[in-house]
Amino acid sequence: MIRFKNGLVMTLEGGCEAEKKEVWVEGDKVCFVGVPTDEQLKNAVFEKEYDLEGDLLMPSFKNAHTHSAMTFLRSYADDLPLQDWLFKQVFPMEAKLTGEDVYWFSRLAILEYLTSGVSASFDMYFELDDYVRANIESGFRTVLCGAVSGEGENAKVLEERYLKYNGIDPLISMRLGFHAEYTASRELLEGIAELAEKYKVPVSVHNSETAKEVRECIEKYGKTPTRLFDDLGIYKYGGAGFHCVHFAPEDMDIFRERGVFAVSCPGSNSKLASGIAPVTDMLARGVKVGLGTDGPASNNALDMFREMYLLTVLQKLRNNDAAALPADEVLKIACCASAETMGLADCGCIAVGKAADLIVIGLKKPSMQPVNNIAKNLVYSGSKENVRMTVIAGKVRYLDGEFFVGEDAARIYAKCSELTEALKKR
Amino acid sequence: MIRFKNGLVMTLEGGCEAEKKEVWVEGDKVCFVGVPTDEQLKNAVFEKEYDLEGDLLMPSFKNAHTHSAMTFLRSYADDLPLQDWLFKQVFPMEAKLTGEDVYWFSRLAILEYLTSGVSASFDMYFELDDYVRANIESGFRTVLCGAVSGEGENAKVLEERYLKYNGIDPLISMRLGFHAEYTASRELLEGIAELAEKYKVPVSVHNSETAKEVRECIEKYGKTPTRLFDDLGIYKYGGAGFHCVHFAPEDMDIFRERGVFAVSCPGSNSKLASGIAPVTDMLARGVKVGLGTDGPASNNALDMFREMYLLTVLQKLRNNDAAALPADEVLKIACCASAETMGLADCGCIAVGKAADLIVIGLKKPSMQPVNNIAKNLVYSGSKENVRMTVIAGKVRYLDGEFFVGEDAARIYAKCSELTEALKKR
Repeated sequence: MIRFKNGLVMTLEGGCEAEKKEVWVEGDKVCFVGVPTDEQLKNAVFEKEYDLEGDLLMPSFKNAHTHSAMTFLRSYADDLPLQDWLFKQVFPMEAKLTGEDVYWFSRLAILEYLTSGVSASFDMYFELDDYVRANIESGFRTVLCGAVSGEGENAKVLEERYLKYNGIDPLISMRLGFHAEYTASRELLEGIAELAEKYKVPVSVHNSETAKEVRECIEKYGKTPTRLFDDLGIYKYGGAGFHCVHFAPEDMDIFRERGVFAVSCPGSNSKLASGIAPVTDMLARGVKVGLGTDGPASNNALDMFREMYLLTVLQKLRNNDAAALPADEVLKIACCASAETMGLADCGCIAVGKAADLIVIGLKKPSMQPVNNIAKNLVYSGSKENVRMTVIAGKVRYLDGEFFVGEDAARIYAKCSELTEALKKR
Repeated sequence: MIRFKNGLVMTLEGGCEAEKKEVWVEGDKVCFVGVPTDEQLKNAVFEKEYDLEGDLLMPSFKNAHTHSAMTFLRSYADDLPLQDWLFKQVFPMEAKLTGEDVYWFSRLAILEYLTSGVSASFDMYFELDDYVRANIESGFRTVLCGAVSGEGENAKVLEERYLKYNGIDPLISMRLGFHAEYTASRELLEGIAELAEKYKVPVSVHNSETAKEVRECIEKYGKTPTRLFDDLGIYKYGGAGFHCVHFAPEDMDIFRERGVFAVSCPGSNSKLASGIAPVTDMLARGVKVGLGTDGPASNNALDMFREMYLLTVLQKLRNNDAAALPADEVLKIACCASAETMGLADCGCIAVGKAADLIVIGLKKPSMQPVNNIAKNLVYSGSKENVRMTVIAGKVRYLDGEFFVGEDAARIYAKCSELTEALKKR
């Protein structure tokens, strides 16, 4: 059993208050939260005790939308118009990727997640065997959501993957998903709807990221991507829409009725000038909202502190209202709703029987002082420098700048540099 | 002499490229930049050598607008409408501040600047003796700009301060400045114009932060704050406008002609829902632009990485153009133009004879890998976790998480907590 003592604990079960409590972990689960009695302490056998020295233990962040392996494209082609970026820079480089590349570039992304207090990612990419291996070897939790598109891939391939990766490892799961309406054939869309019905499960997909995407979908099908997906039955059992920037009230109503999560990616949407998602409108209409970084090619960081900050300040700007989307709501979106988005409801808050996916925030840093309000400190002045520890499934994977992922960080950096340079020449 | 070796050096003298070079520092100045010959090395006597191990040495960031001592209000009253925030929360607390409070709260801000690679601040607040003492004792560089307003303060008081603080210490200087049009009497405005003429110097002031401010100025004077200040002669010798969010093309033309800097504070403007400054329009019209955090009550962090990122992505959103305000420009604004804004042109880039205000960026962190483009890495995925060292006037004030400011960080945190709690009860 692992004991976290002498800290403040924010469970996020109710609000965002932090209290002097202990958390004990047995295996990959939380087994005690509270102030132990002398009797409980006498009977407990701890393999390891962490003295938090007044720092904050809280649920980890979950990254509800990303393409982890795109680390190799970080700072490769920024400050370009979207179409040039995608077609002249990103796609030609991606076409050259091997499984070995994906393995190492994913390991690099996982290191970055750990520094930002992220314990799980909802990932859309390819070379899944290699991607899954990178996560298992690093001890990182991930949910695959498929990147099938119209080009040579079909619902059958997706189904095979779905059956293969669910159950492969306790840290790995898969939800049905595909890239986007604009890269899917009608046949693929119908095939995915059949799969959703066959397994009675949610489907996750890029949705309404750009004005162009929505406009062209309406030209082609006479309806928005959301309406199209719902009419086909794709959203019948819920799911997620990634981005949802250009989103009509009718789209929101469909999301609410089907229990589909809108995953906002404010960093990527800003950097690519896609727009500001109507997040406060969604919440007011009862839509559940998750938060993601999107991939490092567009963001370019994998930093949930930056996303939390952007999520709220962009809504304040959009609504011309400094009171829009308060810090408490943002924190619960990043930790709990994002976990629910990817089917990891057990990883959301800290409670007995839940997964031990935890982080420790160092409060003895200038940006965290004084502590007038911990939740606001986290959202408005928190950053990676405050993350002291990241725990996934009861295992410490990051502690005070050091990684425990079964591989030297220096080797991962070196391999990624070498493979990135090789890709440019290939 | 101090030697920085085995690193990459980005001088920012020209573009943003980084090269294998050494930098040597004698006293508070840079005395060598380049690849030394064997002869030069043989003749050099180093008190201290820093092996950068491949990390990046570059000019520090300069925070061109802040109210440092407001750290006590961090997370105290966020998520509120602007008027409630200011009148019900900020002003009543500020009215109770003592010099001792300002001293400790400023020391806390200085710690945070150091973690973010900031070597100098352009600060507007009160209790200047105590503020100046906090900076001198910490070894931090600051430029005061006066916070005189209509209430009991006048141009004579400002002049006395101007003469007192300039020359008081090599780290301290003062420029003429006042709070804002909406807190200044006509008499004060005219008095400040006379001072500007008497000393032939620039004047710095909050300008066009909110739509309300501009609207009410036009109602009162029939012109924008910028036109008013210029007509009175306040901007005759240049200066700075802080915020410049609601800024007309005619305002920009005045700024260009007078050489006035527009200091953007994108974090504060977003969080308070003031709007997005037309920064790319200003640059296109030839206006010089600086960058600041504003105070920790509104921001709430004192983090130039976040400001750099916001500066560019908000322009991308505003212009609907992912190519707007590229990373190289942002970096030069944060390091060089911000220094110029406050009269610290000597602190802008790394060159022989210039001030040794330097930072070391650790590249061996996941967010900095791979290094496809260092400037883009810094602006789009950089954060405080990347700052390894902050050097001010040739003295190392921050190194790998440790502060060298003549006082324990723990004591500063404890004093600030204690004084903040006492203020709430006073």
